[in-house]
Amino acid sequence: MNLKRPAPTLHDVSVAAGVSTATVSRCLNFPDQVAKLTRDKVLSAIQLLGYSPNFGAKAMAARRTNTIGAIIPTMENAIFARGLEAFQEELRLHGFTMLVASTSYRPEIEEEQIRSLVARGADALLLIGHERDPEIYRFLETQGVPVLITWVFDAESTRPSVGFDNRVAMMEMAIKVIEFGHTELAFISAATARNDRATARLNGIGDAMIAAGLNADDLHCIETTYGIEEGAAAFDKLMLKTPRPTAVFCGNDVLAVGALRRARELKIAVPQDVSIIGFDDIELAQVAYPPLTTVHVPHREMGRRAGHALADHLKNGTPLKSVQLGTRPVLRETLAPVKVGS
Amino acid sequence: MNLKRPAPTLHDVSVAAGVSTATVSRCLNFPDQVAKLTRDKVLSAIQLLGYSPNFGAKAMAARRTNTIGAIIPTMENAIFARGLEAFQEELRLHGFTMLVASTSYRPEIEEEQIRSLVARGADALLLIGHERDPEIYRFLETQGVPVLITWVFDAESTRPSVGFDNRVAMMEMAIKVIEFGHTELAFISAATARNDRATARLNGIGDAMIAAGLNADDLHCIETTYGIEEGAAAFDKLMLKTPRPTAVFCGNDVLAVGALRRARELKIAVPQDVSIIGFDDIELAQVAYPPLTTVHVPHREMGRRAGHALADHLKNGTPLKSVQLGTRPVLRETLAPVKVGS
Repeated sequence: MNLKRPAPTLHDVSVAAGVSTATVSRCLNFPDQVAKLTRDKVLSAIQLLGYSPNFGAKAMAARRTNTIGAIIPTMENAIFARGLEAFQEELRLHGFTMLVASTSYRPEIEEEQIRSLVARGADALLLIGHERDPEIYRFLETQGVPVLITWVFDAESTRPSVGFDNRVAMMEMAIKVIEFGHTELAFISAATARNDRATARLNGIGDAMIAAGLNADDLHCIETTYGIEEGAAAFDKLMLKTPRPTAVFCGNDVLAVGALRRARELKIAVPQDVSIIGFDDIELAQVAYPPLTTVHVPHREMGRRAGHALADHLKNGTPLKSVQLGTRPVLRETLAPVKVGS
Repeated sequence: MNLKRPAPTLHDVSVAAGVSTATVSRCLNFPDQVAKLTRDKVLSAIQLLGYSPNFGAKAMAARRTNTIGAIIPTMENAIFARGLEAFQEELRLHGFTMLVASTSYRPEIEEEQIRSLVARGADALLLIGHERDPEIYRFLETQGVPVLITWVFDAESTRPSVGFDNRVAMMEMAIKVIEFGHTELAFISAATARNDRATARLNGIGDAMIAAGLNADDLHCIETTYGIEEGAAAFDKLMLKTPRPTAVFCGNDVLAVGALRRARELKIAVPQDVSIIGFDDIELAQVAYPPLTTVHVPHREMGRRAGHALADHLKNGTPLKSVQLGTRPVLRETLAPVKVGS
């Protein structure tokens, strides 16, 4: 598949917007000098055509910038940091520089950043998860910018990714938890809308419940934003449920660490009274007290292999292929068998 | 002061290297097609002249990219993450996008990234700490790219920074520790060479010791790289000293958390047998057990004010000015009075 279709020109934009090329150019460089109505028309045309202001397709085809953009949902709590450091180290071996942008989990910010990185001449992009507006993928295709997805592996997607199956990862953990005798289960999740990782993790718990003869609808699920405080607040609510959950899964280690802190404040013993389970195995998980039972994600291997694949694609034309990496439940001290009689 | 001197052209590079402009161009775009000797000559000329391949100075003066680069020493452990998220939020209010690069604390990587961000047309750069090769500052001046320094405040520097006085910050904490009766002090530090923050923190402990009538030469200092394992290993060594230190300062919270973990493994009670003190007050500090006594750094305010200053400079020409922010010792559970008789 050849991704390099002829890209739209400044002239195409001017025709679509019904203005002169000089006006388009002024919109791009001195937007304050153009009436809002005109600016809006030009911006709509730019979006519609997938025009990228700073580099024409010809310039991009001819001039390798040796820069690869990575766009992640957040820099806080270092969830993606270890993977990105490995990605960068690998790219560097091949002469590429990495530039990172972070979206605060907001799709509209991700879109701005994709456009900005393409305008800055990024040779390729690394994005987290498959789920985004199809128009963005069309824009990237028009611009001839290859994209590699990471942090997920979905056998049904045609888009290449280097990642892991979030559903299977969480299911394997949930099977262990159920083997410990837990039947009253809860899940503190990130918002599942437009987040394929969160949705898959939720479904993974459901799979394990069904396999064990439990009713997946009995899972108490609270959606919140990722953060220590948010994990603590959600844990509070869950402890008021009747019957009270004996095992609380968390969508990531940050939420789990918040739940753990609130349990200590509420004098609910972990793991004696309630088990708490994280996801990611970032450094927080080992530093937490007691150390956190969590799903180990191969951060460094994922970053390294993604970097290698993109470098090999850009330098040698090797097609990008999907790679599935494994995860494993790491049983530390926050998971214990359910108390008899609880 | 007008930073916009005429920038060197492709032609200037070709004259300095003694080759044709076509060869310079080939070196930049298809380096594999040029003999190594020629490539080296051209690269030397580029470095010497401070030539930035992708944009001439004229293009840069005319075309605002609305992108600001931030270059940090590491993404791991989220030391800089909260500050950067606030920086990005503020920039976004003013219509700017942030791109981040990380150096793994290596000056040569920082230099590559500065050149890459300038070549990608960054409107301005945010850099951590003052200390770097003067040639880099000359290069940025030649390119007309404003720079704001953060994470430090040095009244003697003429370069604008939005930050805090690392020496005073650590001194204030050391005064508290000495007030608790500790006289056998140790410091697990980052390498102080080419790191003005680490050097200032070391000097801050010395200041407090001298003020208390102690001999600053008695401070046991171990330099290591930032990391949990490294903090643990350094703590091991310090516990073998005679007399054994009763208070261990750490250059950041990550090292402190490592020290804390090793203390638990060695069955050395914190804070009863030894006090451990961090720096930064990142989320790790509160999650650690026991919660860590540390120096609170105003991450979010620093990021927000740096973002505001750069946006105001680029949009309104407001000169960049230095701003000093305060820090404060946060006394949590890892610091206690020295044991009588220890």
